[in-house]
Formats: sequence, structure tokens, C-alpha cells
Amino acid sequence: MTARKSGGLANTIAGETAISTVGKEGKGLTYRGYSIHDLAHYGTFEETAYLLLYGRLPDEDELLGYKLKLNRLRRLPDGLRSLLEHLPATMQPMDVLRTGISALAAFEPETADRGPRQIADRLLACGTSLLLYWHHFHTSGLRIDTEAPESASIAGHFLQLLHGRPPSELHEETLDVSLILYAEHEFNASTFAARVTASTLSDFYSSITTGIGTLRGPLHGGANEAAMELIERFTDADEAEKGVLQLLEQRQLVMGFGHRVYSISDPRSDIIKLWSATLSKEAGDTRLYPVSERIEEVMQRERQLFPNLDFYSASAYRFLGIPTDLFTPLFVLSRISGWSAHIIEQREGNRIIRPSALYVGPEPLSWVELADRR
Amino acid sequence: MTARKSGGLANTIAGETAISTVGKEGKGLTYRGYSIHDLAHYGTFEETAYLLLYGRLPDEDELLGYKLKLNRLRRLPDGLRSLLEHLPATMQPMDVLRTGISALAAFEPETADRGPRQIADRLLACGTSLLLYWHHFHTSGLRIDTEAPESASIAGHFLQLLHGRPPSELHEETLDVSLILYAEHEFNASTFAARVTASTLSDFYSSITTGIGTLRGPLHGGANEAAMELIERFTDADEAEKGVLQLLEQRQLVMGFGHRVYSISDPRSDIIKLWSATLSKEAGDTRLYPVSERIEEVMQRERQLFPNLDFYSASAYRFLGIPTDLFTPLFVLSRISGWSAHIIEQREGNRIIRPSALYVGPEPLSWVELADRR
Repeated sequence: MTARKSGGLANTIAGETAISTVGKEGKGLTYRGYSIHDLAHYGTFEETAYLLLYGRLPDEDELLGYKLKLNRLRRLPDGLRSLLEHLPATMQPMDVLRTGISALAAFEPETADRGPRQIADRLLACGTSLLLYWHHFHTSGLRIDTEAPESASIAGHFLQLLHGRPPSELHEETLDVSLILYAEHEFNASTFAARVTASTLSDFYSSITTGIGTLRGPLHGGANEAAMELIERFTDADEAEKGVLQLLEQRQLVMGFGHRVYSISDPRSDIIKLWSATLSKEAGDTRLYPVSERIEEVMQRERQLFPNLDFYSASAYRFLGIPTDLFTPLFVLSRISGWSAHIIEQREGNRIIRPSALYVGPEPLSWVELADRR
Repeated sequence: MTARKSGGLANTIAGETAISTVGKEGKGLTYRGYSIHDLAHYGTFEETAYLLLYGRLPDEDELLGYKLKLNRLRRLPDGLRSLLEHLPATMQPMDVLRTGISALAAFEPETADRGPRQIADRLLACGTSLLLYWHHFHTSGLRIDTEAPESASIAGHFLQLLHGRPPSELHEETLDVSLILYAEHEFNASTFAARVTASTLSDFYSSITTGIGTLRGPLHGGANEAAMELIERFTDADEAEKGVLQLLEQRQLVMGFGHRVYSISDPRSDIIKLWSATLSKEAGDTRLYPVSERIEEVMQRERQLFPNLDFYSASAYRFLGIPTDLFTPLFVLSRISGWSAHIIEQREGNRIIRPSALYVGPEPLSWVELADRR
């Protein structure tokens, strides 16, 4: 195999997975066999996380128990709260998550008694606390109570902590669906990187930290923030059309379109687009949604590129009142479920992931004494 | 390609590199064309880091300037010192490095003016400060001055900060050689993971954080600590022989032997073995080195496995008075140079690293209402 063909390992099978099908013909996108459409339509994010981590859908008692468990895991260790207060206010929220979860390893290390699923549940439950405790402390000086309200879902908890008031049902449900869609996506770059870390038998927190750092890039999770920045440049659809045509002419990348694995469409995009449309109507919006639709049209017409999950997630998040720099962190709060399932899978029958490289450097060189160099 | 064949991506070319040749027939191990033997024999770690990062050996003025630059970059930001004081004393040093460097992103983010080579130099210079400031603060309550002595090499700086006195020439040189040997090794797991992170165009600190978390595992950088723990179990060579035979019989892994890429020997092992032998003589040691040699003999005889770099690094580090849990962190302090060179190379002509997976999970399943599950 030449390096050119394997650039970015495109179409190279790097291992086996039983967790999801991405772009597999005739199978659409499934998590452990369940279609993403069913999960988004009938399920909740907690059910989805349970399915990914424990391998099957929970029954009524198990789901109730799981939600109660997650609710009890929201409290941050005092030492971590104090660390978060010492992180600068100017820090990127993605860097806060990466650093905060890396630090949590010190307070609650992985041990025989605290295994991967327990840490995964803990991170799903306290990730929101960690992010929004830092956020409020540095924007308003408030030390928020990260545990309330007791009954809320993870989506409800996030919106409650962010806005300081209970969200509407519509808002909570939209975020819940978004978390379901973002939960898992096979060997995407962050999951694959997390598996490489896991393959050296490193600890759980190291793998999650790798996932966060990798998701951060604009070619991956960072795309939802980049899409928002693009959409907000324009005041109406016509201006958007002109602007995007100009970007294309300058051969600039338009974020939120196309996908390495999908060739015709991203099955998650239509789902989040509908929710974004509903929120747009509710908000009486005459700008973000029409601008987004026009950008979609132009990209389809000019480049035959379809929107991926990130594109309509951007406007949906804006309608929920979420600041742009918390978009990719929300992706993290959801994807922790998929990463965790993959780390656990990687450890079963593990082999260290250590590829080869095609050497294209200089032939052997003779040593030159320091005084003779020039 | 079947997933079985590509397990762990063994022998799969994942990309091109001009940085080093590892196990390439007829080329031995070279960094940018220079043999590891020449570098270890004639060079210094600072020259090696310069070579890896800037692509060629420095001349006299450049090397002097580079060393002065590194010396000036040792001071930690006040905010980071305060963070390190808030990290628990029970934290694993590898977790301290992962968290501390992740946090440094907040104080000195990557920008157009602070580019990858500048951050790499900064991390090479202040990694020791970060690790040993935390170490002394939590073992003795001391807030050490991380800048002195001004003239020391990175190896000398490390030993001076660790022991609070200038090292002997022999000790400084041994550590310097060890840093040269650990600096770079093609697409090993941590470097490859760092490249996956870089391939999403994430920031420099994210990639380094990924490298640290991946190196931490006992199948990778953690092996030097595991080798030490093995060696120190035995009081003499005969006991070591008995103990290792028992481990082999129980099919347990003996760390520090064999290598994914090398099949006959690790070219770095003989170099560090010689230094370990010299230190053993100097110390009047009658245990660690003879035990190590016997383990080598047994592994060769019973399994035809050769020691890799980690094995004799363990006893060498012990003779330098380095605590075992700082062995893998030292590997980090050196490998930052190799990771950085690879991150920079990955960004040139980047394509996101996103492989495929062979799906081995359930066929599509119908949704079951919550009340009907069981």
C-alpha cells in the first residue's frame, strides 16, 4: 500500500467494532443495531448512553436507576472546584474540559474498584458541572450549585445550569436529541485517537483527554463553532449566497459540509434540521434559519456537498441561547459515551496500535563536528 | 484487507515521514539522516532537539543561541505554579505532566505569534520545571527556584532540580544520552496519536497532551517503570532467573523486551546498557546490573527476545537517584522533541486521519418501547 493511497487512513480498516455502523450500505447509522432515527425519535440521551456503555437498551427500572445514579454523580470534588477557579477566565472552554478531566484523574483515579463504566457515568454526569462551574465563576464570580435540579435529564441539567432557570420542554428535548446524534460515530478521528491511547493500556482519563484534544480541531468537533461563525456573518439569505460564492471562489473551506464517510447525505442532518426549523419558528427568527438554508442550497448546487450534523446544530444551539464557544464542549459531553464504549471495546483483545511510516527523509548522513558545520 | 491482518495497524503504512528511520533495512535508526550512534556518541540532547525541530544540525553559534534560549524559557507562569500547588500530592507524575501542559495552553495559547516551534522549545525548557516544582512542593513543601543553574543542559537542569545539587559529569552525560535515545521513534503509538490529534487542526497543546496520555501506558512509555519494578523484586541474579522463568511459565508479560518494529535487536539498547554498566561500577553495585543482565540472558534463551531501550534505562535511572515514578515523565521530557517535529510535519499537507472499522455488531434491530423491554 502506498502512503498516498492511505493518506489519512481513508478506507483503511483499522480494527473491528460492534458499536456503530457508519455509512455501511443498507444499514444506515445504527448504535448497537438501533437506528439513529428511532433513538432520536423515541429514545433519550440517557437510554442512548446506557445502550452504548452497557450493550443493550435498559428496561424501565434500569433506566430509572441509571438516571438516579447519574444525578447523584454531579457533584465536583472540592479540590477540582478550586482548580477550576484557578484556571484563567480567558481559557478556551475546550481547554478547560481537557484540563479539568485530566485533573479529575488525580481525585478519582481509575482502580480495580473504580472501573471504566463507572468513570464514564461519572464523566457524563459531572462534565456539565465542570464546564459550567468554570463558566459562571469566571463570567460572574458565582459559585453555582452544580447538583440541582435533581430530576433533570443531562440536557435539562445543562440548560438549567447555563441559564439559571428550568428550560422549556421544547428546548430540553432539542438538546437531548442533539446529544443523541452526537453520541457515537465509529472510528472518527477523536474516537480513533482515544483507542490508540487505550491500546498502550493507559488509564481511562488519558484516553478521554485525547478524545477532547482531538475533537477540538475545526476539521472535527470544532466545525459546529466554525459553522456558527459563518452563518452569523450574514444578515439575510441573499447576502449569504453572495458570501458563500465568494468563499468558494477563493477556495476556502466552508465548515459543516461533506463527510469522510458519507457520500450522499449525513443521516443526522435532517433530524437536527427539523428541530432547528421548529426553534426558528418559536423564536420568530427571520435570519439564522433562512441564511442556513440558503447556504445549504448554494453548497448543494455549487459543490454537490450536503450539510453534516454540525451545520444545523449551530443554529439550533444558538436558539437555545448557548454561547458559540460552548458548542464543541457540548459535543464532548455527549461523545464521552461513544469514546467510553470504544475504550472498553479496545481493551478487550487489545493490540497496541502502532502503524508504520513510509520514510521520505534523507539518506544516512555522516556526522560533522560542531566546529566544521556551516 | 481484513481487520485481523491489520490488528493494531501492524505493517500498515499510515503516512509519510522524513524525521526518522525505524527498523528500515540498511538504515538502522537515524534522526533526519544522522545515526543514533553518532548522535549519542558525539552529540547532545539540545543538538538533537534542534535537529528534529529545525531540520538540520545547528552550527556553533546556533547551538549556543539555542541553549541560551532554552535556559531563558524555564520559568513557570505564576498561575501555573499555583495550579500545580493545588494538584493533589497523590497524583501520578504522568498525570501531572498531562494536566500541567494542558493547563499551560491557557496561559500561553498557540497563536500566529506563538507558533509550534516556539511552544516546543518552551515545553522542552519548562517541562522539567513543571514536573519538579510539583514534586518538591508536595514532598517537602518547598517552592523551588526552577531557573537555576543558568548554564546547565536540560539533563543537568533536571538532575540539579531533582537533587538540589549539581550532578557529576558522568551523571549529566548519562541522562543526556538517555534523552537523545528517547527523543524520536517514527510512528510509535504516542507519536501517531499526537498526529491524529494534529490532523483535525487542533492546537499544539492538545497534540502534546495526547502524546503524554498515550505514552503513559505500560505497553509504551510506562515500560521503563515496569522494568524497574521487575528488576527490584530480586536480590541476586539466580533469584532473578528463577523469578523470570516463573513469570514466563505463567505466561505473564515481561516488560522491556521485544519491539513491534525491531526483530533482532533495539539499536538503542546497547548504548544505554554501556552507560548503565559504567554507573553500576561507579556505584559499587552488585545487584541491579547483574540482575538485569541475567534477566536479559533468560529472555534471550527462553524467548529469543532482546531488551529494548526501556530495560537498561531503568537501572541507569536508578543509579542516577531518580525515583521510579519519574522514569516515564523523563521519557516525555525528551519525546516532546519528536512529537513536536511530527505535529509540524503532519500539519504540512494535512489530511484528517480517519480510518474505517470492520463492523461486527448486531444487524438492524427494531425499536422496543420502554414498557415492553425485558
